[in-house]
Amino acid sequence: MSFTASLAYLYGVNDSGSLSSRVRQTGNPTYASRNQMEKAITELKALLGEDAVSTDSEDLHRHGFSDWSTTNVDTLPIAVAYPKSTEGVSQIAKVCYNYKIPIISFSGGTSVEGQFTAPFGGFSVDFAHMDKILAIHDDDLDVVVQPSVAWMELNEQIKSAGLFFPVDPGPAARIGGMVGTSCSGTNAVRYGTMKDWVVNLTVVLADGRVIKTRRRPRKTAAGYNLTNLFIGAEGTLGIATEITLKLTVLPQETSVAVVTFPTIRDAATAASKIMRAGIPVAAMEIMDDVQMGVINKVGSTKRKWKEVPTMFFKFSGTKAGVKDIIETVQAITRKNMGGDFQFAVNEEEKMELWSARKEALWSMLALKGEGEELWSTDVAVPLSRLAEIIEDSRRELSDLGMFASMLGHIGDGNFHSAIFYNKKDPEQVEKVKRVVYRMVDKALEMEGTCTGEHSVGLSKKASLVKELGPETIGVMRELKRALDPHSIMNPGKIFDL
Amino acid sequence: MSFTASLAYLYGVNDSGSLSSRVRQTGNPTYASRNQMEKAITELKALLGEDAVSTDSEDLHRHGFSDWSTTNVDTLPIAVAYPKSTEGVSQIAKVCYNYKIPIISFSGGTSVEGQFTAPFGGFSVDFAHMDKILAIHDDDLDVVVQPSVAWMELNEQIKSAGLFFPVDPGPAARIGGMVGTSCSGTNAVRYGTMKDWVVNLTVVLADGRVIKTRRRPRKTAAGYNLTNLFIGAEGTLGIATEITLKLTVLPQETSVAVVTFPTIRDAATAASKIMRAGIPVAAMEIMDDVQMGVINKVGSTKRKWKEVPTMFFKFSGTKAGVKDIIETVQAITRKNMGGDFQFAVNEEEKMELWSARKEALWSMLALKGEGEELWSTDVAVPLSRLAEIIEDSRRELSDLGMFASMLGHIGDGNFHSAIFYNKKDPEQVEKVKRVVYRMVDKALEMEGTCTGEHSVGLSKKASLVKELGPETIGVMRELKRALDPHSIMNPGKIFDL
Repeated sequence: MSFTASLAYLYGVNDSGSLSSRVRQTGNPTYASRNQMEKAITELKALLGEDAVSTDSEDLHRHGFSDWSTTNVDTLPIAVAYPKSTEGVSQIAKVCYNYKIPIISFSGGTSVEGQFTAPFGGFSVDFAHMDKILAIHDDDLDVVVQPSVAWMELNEQIKSAGLFFPVDPGPAARIGGMVGTSCSGTNAVRYGTMKDWVVNLTVVLADGRVIKTRRRPRKTAAGYNLTNLFIGAEGTLGIATEITLKLTVLPQETSVAVVTFPTIRDAATAASKIMRAGIPVAAMEIMDDVQMGVINKVGSTKRKWKEVPTMFFKFSGTKAGVKDIIETVQAITRKNMGGDFQFAVNEEEKMELWSARKEALWSMLALKGEGEELWSTDVAVPLSRLAEIIEDSRRELSDLGMFASMLGHIGDGNFHSAIFYNKKDPEQVEKVKRVVYRMVDKALEMEGTCTGEHSVGLSKKASLVKELGPETIGVMRELKRALDPHSIMNPGKIFDL
Repeated sequence: MSFTASLAYLYGVNDSGSLSSRVRQTGNPTYASRNQMEKAITELKALLGEDAVSTDSEDLHRHGFSDWSTTNVDTLPIAVAYPKSTEGVSQIAKVCYNYKIPIISFSGGTSVEGQFTAPFGGFSVDFAHMDKILAIHDDDLDVVVQPSVAWMELNEQIKSAGLFFPVDPGPAARIGGMVGTSCSGTNAVRYGTMKDWVVNLTVVLADGRVIKTRRRPRKTAAGYNLTNLFIGAEGTLGIATEITLKLTVLPQETSVAVVTFPTIRDAATAASKIMRAGIPVAAMEIMDDVQMGVINKVGSTKRKWKEVPTMFFKFSGTKAGVKDIIETVQAITRKNMGGDFQFAVNEEEKMELWSARKEALWSMLALKGEGEELWSTDVAVPLSRLAEIIEDSRRELSDLGMFASMLGHIGDGNFHSAIFYNKKDPEQVEKVKRVVYRMVDKALEMEGTCTGEHSVGLSKKASLVKELGPETIGVMRELKRALDPHSIMNPGKIFDL
C-alpha cells in the first residue's frame, strides 16, 4: 500500500482548484513503506512495551475516522501509540523521524474538519494515559496539565479553589486538541481564545527533541512567541505534551438572560450596540428561528420557546456590577426591537434559560435521520458584518432547500451553521459544499476568516489559500520545513506540503 | 571598515560566557563591504528619491545610539532610509537582500535593551513618514495604522468615538516598536499585552516579499499564528509596515486609589489577595520607599508622599461596579497592613493621586548626576514570588551601595529597577551588571522570565539562553534561518546567529 496514493482523494475533497493543479503545488512527500512501518511498530513495542502500540482495526478506525467530521479520508493510521510520558512521545518521534512515518496526535477526538485523519497513514499518538493534572499553582493562577485532561474535568478539579479555566469548546474536548486547534467557545467574548490562556508548552519536535517554550511567568517579552506558534498549528509543527494554562477566578455573581428579536439583523444590531457600549457580557450567543424550532421539536428543554431569533446572555461580576449590566443590556435590547427579556433570579432559572443554548447541537443531532449527516462549519467576520452574512447564508440554504440551523458567538463576529445532508447523495453533497464554501467566500470578502474556532484541518485548506494568499501560506510552509523537514507531523493538514 | 569586527564588542557587553566560546556559537554572518553598502545607498536613492536616504552623522548617531539604553555598541548604521510606503520598505529589503546588508527598523526609539543598535552596521529604516492612521472601523472596534503612529496620539484620535487602545508603554513609544518588543504597561493586568491587541500585520520579509498575516476578523483559528510570531521578534524576522489593532471602549467610570504599606511584602500579599479574589482592577502598581522619596525630593508632584512602599490602583467599569471594586480593594488592603487608603472623588484628585506613578521615571532622571546613567531593567515571575524577588534585589542593591528605585506591575508579577551608575567607572559598571543579572537569575530560578516587557535586544541574550535553554533557542534560530537566510533582519538581537 502506498501512502502517496491517498493524495488524489485528499485533494478531491477540497473545494477549489483542479486536481492536477493542486498536486503540482505539492512536494509529494514520500513516507515509509508498509514494511518499514511494521518494523517501526516492532521497535516501538520494544521501547514502550507491547501494550503501548495497538493495531486493532476498531482502534485504527476510531483514530482515523469521525462521524462528526466534515471530511474523512479512505486511509487510516497503521497503528495507535499510547505514550505515558513526554519521553515516550520523544521516542515515538525519533522512530518515526528515522523511518519517515507520519505522526498524528489525538486527545478528545472532537475536531470537525478532519484534523486527526491519516491521509498518509502513519501513527496516531493517543494521549489516553497522559491525562493528569500535574500541578495546581493556585496563588499563581496557573495549572500544569497533560494533553488528555478534559477542560470540563479540569474545571471540576479547581472549582473548590474558586478558580476556573474559561475556554469552553465542545464538552468532550481535551486540552491537547484545544491547543492544536486554537479553539474557543461561548466565553471567548469575555475571556478570549485558547491562545490567550497558555503560559507555556512542552513540545516534542519531529526529530524527537523536547523543548519548553517558556518558563512560568504570566507575562513575558523574551524571544519569539513559540507558544503561540504551536497553538493552532494542529500538530503540524510539534506535539504538545505538557501545557501550563492560566486560570482565572470564578466570578462572585453570575446571571443569564434570554431575549427574542423579530430578525437576525435586529439581534445583531443590539449585539453591536452592546459591544460598542463596552458592556462586559460574559457570553452573548444568538440562535436563529430554525434552531429554536429544533429545540422545541426535540423537546430537549423544559420550556417551549418562541421560534424567532433569540439571544442568550451570561453576565458575571460583582452583585452590583451584574445588576448594572442586566439593566443596561435590557435597555439596549428594548431600543433595538428586542422583546420578551427574561433574566434568571436563581440558580434553577439560570440553568433553564441557558439550557436551550446548551442543547443546541444535541437537539440537531437528535433530528438526524437515517443516512443523514450534519455538516458543521464556522466562519468569523468583522463585528459589523455578522448580520449580513448570517442572513445571506440563511437565504441561500432556504433557496437550496437545505435544513440547517445557525448559531453565533455574536460578540466575536463568529457563527456556526449545522446543515443536514445525505452523504450518499452526490447532489446533496455538492449542495452542502457549495453553500459552505460560498459562506467562506462571503466571509473572506468581508475581510473575515474561513474559520473562527474549528481550524482548517483538511476541509478548509483551499479556503485558507484564498484567505491569506500563496505568499503567506508560503511563509507557513517555510516554517514547517524548518521544523519538520520530512513532513511527518500531521501531514496534509492546514496547507498542502 | 569590517562589520564583523564589532562582534568582539558585541559579545563583550553580555553577561556571561567567555568571548571565545560566544563567538564559536555564532555563524559569523558576512555582510556587504563598505563599498557595496555605498552602492546600495546609490541604488536606493535612485529608487526612493534623494531625500529618502540620509548619511548625516547626527542622523546616524540618533539611529544607532541611545542614552536610555543599557547597551550601546561602537558601530552605527551606515545610512538611514525613510520609506513612505510598504512598497518602499519592500524595495529597501530587496536591495539589502541582494547586497547582504542589515536592516534595523526604527520608530519611537524608546527601547532600552539595545534593540535598534547596529552592531553589524547596515541600514536603519525610520518610519517617520509612515505615521498615518489608515482606517478607523469603529463598529468593528479596530483601527489600521502605520508603524510610526504613537499610541498616545492614537488614543487622542479615537477618544471622541468613545474608544481607546489600552497598551501603555513609555509615552514616546510608537506602534511599530511596540509590535517589535511585545510591550505592555500599567494596563496589562486588565487588558493584556501587545500580542493580545493585534489583529493582523502587513510584513516585509528579508527578501522584500510582502505578506499579510490575517484578514480582519477579531477571532480566527485559521492556520499558523504568524501575527504573534512577528510580535516580539524585534524586527529579526520581518518588518511590520501596517498594523491592525483591536480597540476597546472607554469605561463609563474610572477612579484611582493610593495605599501605603509597611513593607513590600505586605503590599505584595495584598496584591495577591486582590488577584485571587478576581477583582478586575484596571491597573495595580507598586513603588518602593526609595521611589517615593525620589518623587518628594524632586518635587515632581504637588503633594508630599509618605516614603514607604505604596500601591497605586486604577479602577474602571460602571458606576456601581467601580464603587464595589473600591470597597473590596479597601477591605482587602486594610486586612493586609495597608494604611492611608485614599481614593479620588473627582477628575482632579484622580490626576493628583496618579501623578506620583506617572512621574516615577522622570523624577529618577531628574536626579541623574553628571556622568551618571540609569540602568533600567525588568523581569517577571509567577505572582506568588514577586515580593521575594523585589526584597532580595532591594537588599542586594543596598549592600552594594547602589542607588536604585523599584517599581512593579504587581498584578503581572513584573517589576522594574532603575539603578544609577557611572558608565566610566568600571567598578560601578561591574556592580550594576552583577546586580541586574543576579536579579535575572533569581527570576529564572522562580520559573520567571528575564524580561516581562522590555524584551531581549542585545542585553539579555545570554539570559534568554539560560531561561529557555539551547534547544529552544535552537528552534528560534531555525525559524529565523527559514525566513531570513542571510541574517539581514536586525542581526545580533535576541540570540546569536
